[in-house]
Order: sequence, then C-alpha cells, then structure tokens
Amino acid sequence: MTASADTIAILRTALPDGSVTTDPDIMAAYRQDWAKDPDAPFPAAVVRARSTDDVQIVMRWAHEHRIPVVPRGAGTGLSGGATAVHGGVVLSTERMRNIAIDPVTRVAVVEPGAFNAEVKKAAAEHGLWYPPDPSSFEMCSIGGNVATNAGGLCCVKYGVTTDYVLGLRVVLADGTAVRLGGPRLKDVAGLSLTKLFVGSEGTLGVVTEATLRLIPAQAPSSTLVASFPSVQSAADAVSTITRSLRPSMLEFMDRVSIGAVEDAMRMGLDRSAEAMLIVRSDAAGDVAGREISQIAEACRNNGADEVFTTDDQDEGEAFAAARRAAIPAVERLGSILLEDVGVPVPDLPALVDGIAAIAQRHELTVAVIAHAGDGNTHPLIVFDPSDAAMTQRAHIAFGEIMDLAIGLGGTITGEHGVGRLKKAWLPDQVGPEVMELTRRIKTALDPLGILNPGAVL
Amino acid sequence: MTASADTIAILRTALPDGSVTTDPDIMAAYRQDWAKDPDAPFPAAVVRARSTDDVQIVMRWAHEHRIPVVPRGAGTGLSGGATAVHGGVVLSTERMRNIAIDPVTRVAVVEPGAFNAEVKKAAAEHGLWYPPDPSSFEMCSIGGNVATNAGGLCCVKYGVTTDYVLGLRVVLADGTAVRLGGPRLKDVAGLSLTKLFVGSEGTLGVVTEATLRLIPAQAPSSTLVASFPSVQSAADAVSTITRSLRPSMLEFMDRVSIGAVEDAMRMGLDRSAEAMLIVRSDAAGDVAGREISQIAEACRNNGADEVFTTDDQDEGEAFAAARRAAIPAVERLGSILLEDVGVPVPDLPALVDGIAAIAQRHELTVAVIAHAGDGNTHPLIVFDPSDAAMTQRAHIAFGEIMDLAIGLGGTITGEHGVGRLKKAWLPDQVGPEVMELTRRIKTALDPLGILNPGAVL
Repeated sequence: MTASADTIAILRTALPDGSVTTDPDIMAAYRQDWAKDPDAPFPAAVVRARSTDDVQIVMRWAHEHRIPVVPRGAGTGLSGGATAVHGGVVLSTERMRNIAIDPVTRVAVVEPGAFNAEVKKAAAEHGLWYPPDPSSFEMCSIGGNVATNAGGLCCVKYGVTTDYVLGLRVVLADGTAVRLGGPRLKDVAGLSLTKLFVGSEGTLGVVTEATLRLIPAQAPSSTLVASFPSVQSAADAVSTITRSLRPSMLEFMDRVSIGAVEDAMRMGLDRSAEAMLIVRSDAAGDVAGREISQIAEACRNNGADEVFTTDDQDEGEAFAAARRAAIPAVERLGSILLEDVGVPVPDLPALVDGIAAIAQRHELTVAVIAHAGDGNTHPLIVFDPSDAAMTQRAHIAFGEIMDLAIGLGGTITGEHGVGRLKKAWLPDQVGPEVMELTRRIKTALDPLGILNPGAVL
Repeated sequence: MTASADTIAILRTALPDGSVTTDPDIMAAYRQDWAKDPDAPFPAAVVRARSTDDVQIVMRWAHEHRIPVVPRGAGTGLSGGATAVHGGVVLSTERMRNIAIDPVTRVAVVEPGAFNAEVKKAAAEHGLWYPPDPSSFEMCSIGGNVATNAGGLCCVKYGVTTDYVLGLRVVLADGTAVRLGGPRLKDVAGLSLTKLFVGSEGTLGVVTEATLRLIPAQAPSSTLVASFPSVQSAADAVSTITRSLRPSMLEFMDRVSIGAVEDAMRMGLDRSAEAMLIVRSDAAGDVAGREISQIAEACRNNGADEVFTTDDQDEGEAFAAARRAAIPAVERLGSILLEDVGVPVPDLPALVDGIAAIAQRHELTVAVIAHAGDGNTHPLIVFDPSDAAMTQRAHIAFGEIMDLAIGLGGTITGEHGVGRLKKAWLPDQVGPEVMELTRRIKTALDPLGILNPGAVL
C-alpha cells in the first residue's frame, strides 16, 4: 500500500511533535543511502523516532495500514539497504543515541543511532574497547552495524559485529517489542534469535537497543608495511602469516589503490609495487614487536621488495589511515561502484587475477583493496557517469565480479549487506533451497511484507 | 504419529543395511542422554546414519509418515534434549565422524559424530586450535556442541561454539539438504541462518556437517589458584580481573566442591576456604606470567588467603583437571541434579548466596562450580534417589534456582540447552512475546512438528 496524506496525518498525530516530516527538502536526504541509487523514490514521509515507543507506534500504524517501512541508521550503507520505497516511510533512528556503559558487566547498552565511534569513545573512558571497526566508524551507526553485521579492519583477529551483540531490543512487524538475549556472556535459553536479527538488514524487525560486549582496551600495536612485486606473492605472505599468527589487521592494496592513495596523501608509498600489505599486531607487551618481526620475515620469504616496521603508534595509525583513505582516494579518479566480495583466503590471488581480467575486458580501472586476512575484498570500479556506455560496462563488471566470487566458492558480500543492489545475485550464491528457507522465515516474521520490502529478498 | 512395525520396515529398506535397529538391548542405550530421565520411553527404532543422504532419507520418511525424530550426537547432553520420544525414532550421527582440516583456509570440515577432542587433535597436527572446550570434550560430539551452542572453560576469552561455526550442512524437516555459510570468515549474504541453527537443539533441522573456524595453537599458559574467605571476595576478584585483563580461564569452586575434589583427588586444596578461583592466562611470551602476577595482586587485594601460581604446564593442567573433576567428585556424595544458570558477572554473589539459602531451606547439599568469568554457574544439587521426599525437595530446589537466576536478570541455561528438562522455565525467562516468535520460526521450518518434539518448546 501507499501512505496517503490522510494516513500520514494519523501517524503524525500518534507521534510526538516533530517526529514526522513530509518536507521534500528534508526528505531528499533520506531517499538514498551511500549506494546512491539514482532511481530512489521520495518516501511518503520520514519519521525520526526518539524511543522504542515511537518505533512501536510506527510499526503498529504500518501494520494496520500495510505501509512499507524502511529502517535507517546513519545512511552510510553501501548496498542500498536503506533506499526509500515508493509510498513508504523511512524510519530513522538517528535521534536515538543513548549509550550506557556498565564497566563491571563489561557491556554497552546502546541506542541504534549512536555512532560506532561514540560507543568506542564511551567504552574507552572505562578502559574498555568495542572492537568492530568499519572504515566508516566515525559516521556509521550501531543500528546499521547490527543490521548489516558490519565488519572492519580488526575483524581478522577480533571478529565481526555479531560476535559482540549479546542482546537486542527489537520491534517486530506488528509493533510488538521483544527483548532478546541480554548482558550475559553465555545464554542458550531458546533459539538464537539475537543472532538471527543481526545481519537481517531491517527485513525482520527494527532494532531499538543493543547490548554489546566490551573487552579490555587494546594494547599498543606494532605496524608493518610491505610492498610486493606481485599479487600472488602478497597473497602467499597472507597465507603464511595467518597459519601461525593472529595479526590485529591484515590489509591489502593493489597497484591502482597504492597510486591513488599516494596521489592524495603523499606518504612515500612504493608506486612501483603490484601489491602492499599493512599488518598490525597488538599482542601484549613486547610480543607485538616480536610478532611483527615474524610477519616481516614471512613477507620477505614470500618475495616482498620492501618491508617497513614501526612500534610508533602515530606512525602506525598513519598507515592504517592510508588504507582507510583508499576509497576516497580512488573516488578522485571518477565515480566508483564499490564491491564487497569475499573468498576463502587461499583463493584471493584467483579473485584478484579474475578482477583484473574483467577490468581489462571492459576497459575499466578497478582498484582492489582487501581485508586480506579474512578474504574480504573491495574492488572499486571506476567510471564516468556522464559516459553512458562506460557506466553500463561498469555495471556489467560489477555483476561479473560477483559471479567470479560465487564461482570461487565465495560470497557476494562480506560486510556491507545485500540490500537492493545485490539481491539479484543472492540466489546464485545460496541456491533455491536457502532462498526458500529465507522466505519462510521472512513470511513468519513479516507476513504483510512491510519491513524493508525489496531489500535482500 | 507413532511409527508402526510396517512403517519402520519401509525405512529399513530405504537405508543401507545395519542402519536401523529395533533391538531393545541396543535401544536401551538410546532412550536417555545424560539427563537420565527415568521416564524416557523406548523409541520405535534407532537409526545410525552414515551420510547426509541417510539423514535425508530418514527425514523424507518421517515427513511422509509424520514420525517424530530425535537427533542425537554422543548423548552427553544434560538437559534431556536427546531423550527418546514414544513412537519416534532416535537419529544418531555417531557414525558420521570424518574430519578434514584445511590449514591454509584455517577451517575444519567436520561430520557431527566427531568428538570435540578429535577435532582439537586433528587441528593440532597442523599447529591449529579449535577453542570451545566443554568439560566433556573427550566424549561429546561436534553435532551436540552445535545443537546446544556449547561453551566451556576457555570461552571467557575465546567465545562459545557459535563463534567458530562458519558454515553448516543441515537437513530440514522435509528432507531438503541446505548448505549455509561456508569457509569464509566474513559473509553477510542473506539472513544469518547458520547462527539460527546453532543452539536450536535439533528442533529446526539435523546438522550433518559443520565448517569450523580454527585459530593458531594456544600459547603456553600460566595458572593461578587462589582461596578466599568468602564468595563475595572471590566474586569481587573476578570483577576486578575481567575489567582489565583477558584470562583464558576463570573458574570458581565453592567450599562443598573444593572438599569433594580434595576427597577424590588429594591435591592439597584448602578445605577451609569458602571459595577458590582457578585462573589462566595464555597471553603470548612472558606476558602470561605478568598477567598472572596482576591477577594474583587482584586476588590478594580482594582478600584471598592463599595464592599459588605456576608456569609449569603440567601443574597448571592438574588444577584445570581438578576443576573439570568437580562434577564426578560431587557425584560421589549422591545423585546430582546439575544446574547451568547464568547471571551478569556482578550478580554472581547474589546468585551463590541465593543458592545457599535454597539449599538450607530444603535441607540439601548444593555444590557450586562456575565459569565465573562469564557468570555461568553449575550448582550441583545432591540427593539420594531412594529417598522420595529428598528427591522431591531436590527437584523443587532445581526449579527455585532457575527462578532465582531469572529474578537476577539471568538465564536458565548458559551452555547446556533447554532440552526437555528446562522447557517449563523458558517462558518465565524470555516472556510470551519471545515464545510466540520462537513458535513462529519453529512452525515455519517444521510445520508438522516432527523434529525433536517436546524439546525447548
């Protein structure tokens, strides 16, 4: 159904003043997420909820009138999971930003609009740490992180968002609010519902609170930067490293991204290298330094041209920042389509080679950066949106890269989510039986199909 | 429905020779799991599957004839999750024991009948480690570990089973086999179905293969044993430790369990202590020793009477073994009802005090051991089964301890599962809305209710 002006008026009356807007100037900012779908419609209204109660009111109303609801965190999603739908409302949790740290139980109880960085900061005030670190951590919200099961750079050692979600408060499609899990490190009472909602991209419910596990603050890191004459040699180094060590970061950049970062930041990176690894160890005490020495040896044994290591925290952070800056740096070359495909670690060279072949076939520049330690790559397809033929080739390449990953036993999305951008490929990855299973769960939890329709399924 | 002899004959014909037995002498071993339900019925048949195909044949048959199926691993479950049901078949995976280690991708692909210890051993041959370590690790199966989302002693640092399950092969209620996830450290394509099946206690499907994440071998540990004049002082030490350190084991024993272990093992434990902590650090290099020194200081600052530390691996393992021996040691005092309640760490003293009050009220001995670092306790209610009144009091106490945990914001089961033994308390913990949500998912996946009926729900 489409929300008429009368239906919106009912919602406006039910919610606190200032919650509902239909102002096109304001709504323009809520049409798209960072996937920037040019065809995204204006929603019928934008609701900025302040509480679980507000979210329940919205969902009861949506349920009664059969109105589509697109939940939205900070809007930094890259797969179109928060693209508005015609006639529906965008339900933003940006005003729900409370963070409460319990340092004894070592949990953070967080509203979904709080930024990842804000949770990290609040935890740090108690000597604690919330590890998951998407590159957008300074501006992405916990709600979005939970919805996409977001990853990041330290996940190679510390795991992804789901590993830190102990409990959720969720508003279901009919407006019922449930509490799942809680501040308990072990709890197997009933089905693993908390975990089911993590990564469900707003299709099963709206998260209004998360109880997150915190761990003691990270120890100082040692950092290594190594350049390689080939992707294969860098990938071999990755395999050697992960077999015996647990780096807290293990990032890869290819020649194109090294050049783009160097253009943007002038850090003295080796432009002639085919590949670069940025590796960190945060092992306690002097073990980090020792681990980095072993990693340096692994790099040299696998043919690294140059290896640089540092125990200086600022210098190490500068290299991590260089890696995080790769996406904006590559964006200076043109518009980009950002991929998120992952493969088992040993298949990284085949994936990167295959991507190069796709780039060549379609006469495109594709930069590749990767969370190499967990096989999760971000090919960045550069194109000129004013060139219709090139734009089309870029979109074809985007799909071919997913096909390639699927063919290698990989995934179409390691940490960004399926959203609307990738849903056409999901059946190819998981197969018809898993799609059917997915549909059964979706139907059981959202029989009217009002929660984020068009995303994932 | 009840499986008739004719229906069983159909199944026998469909499966490889020797798969189906109706011999009462053999079936006697499949009536009960370690919950030892005295009222457990004989099943109509026991099926010992050798492959996913076999399991599919069983489930298609069960679906067609509406026969209940109780999946069973090694039968070491403590909540009656594998108790046979009248007229149904017990589907054992004990013959499915393949283990394949991929040291480059760092995963183990394991059939459900393989023992936890066998997976650990196979991983160790490649310098790798599968961390989850239920106390029964030498005789419990991976299938059961996945079904219950089993925990253990190292979980305080390394997490529980679900944190290591990257993929599953699952046979659904109608015999459809699906592959969920795979050997990818990050994969957010579609709903988190892998995680939904972990901990579902055989009520949603039968796991026939698990892809498990492995990590590099554990470093040598330092171990500490400290005795305390009160439960509160030990619990305070636990809170102090977990705020700033990450021990790889943080176990608690109360006066009764210390005495029982000392009676059984003569290790020179301090019988006069009200509580004992056994703590380990496996931080790399010399950091373990340093961390244990800090833990020793935390124990002393919180009033520990005696603190003993060792870097000797065998000596440290002897103390861990003492902790693992606590259950059999307490069993020498009588039959036991084994509890598994958990609370947020700060509420441990209130839980232990409350258990003591329940024990006193019902004139029972209740020993308490705990994975203190994650708030998961195992009260052991001692009783004489030939004393009907005492047996009744023990069962009342069993329920009261769960009520107590729920009242403290805790869980009725931290790592053993709900099974049949605890299902009456599940609604009190999670509430009617979560029960309804659970039922919706159960119905969506097992509309005929043939998968482990009577467990959890």
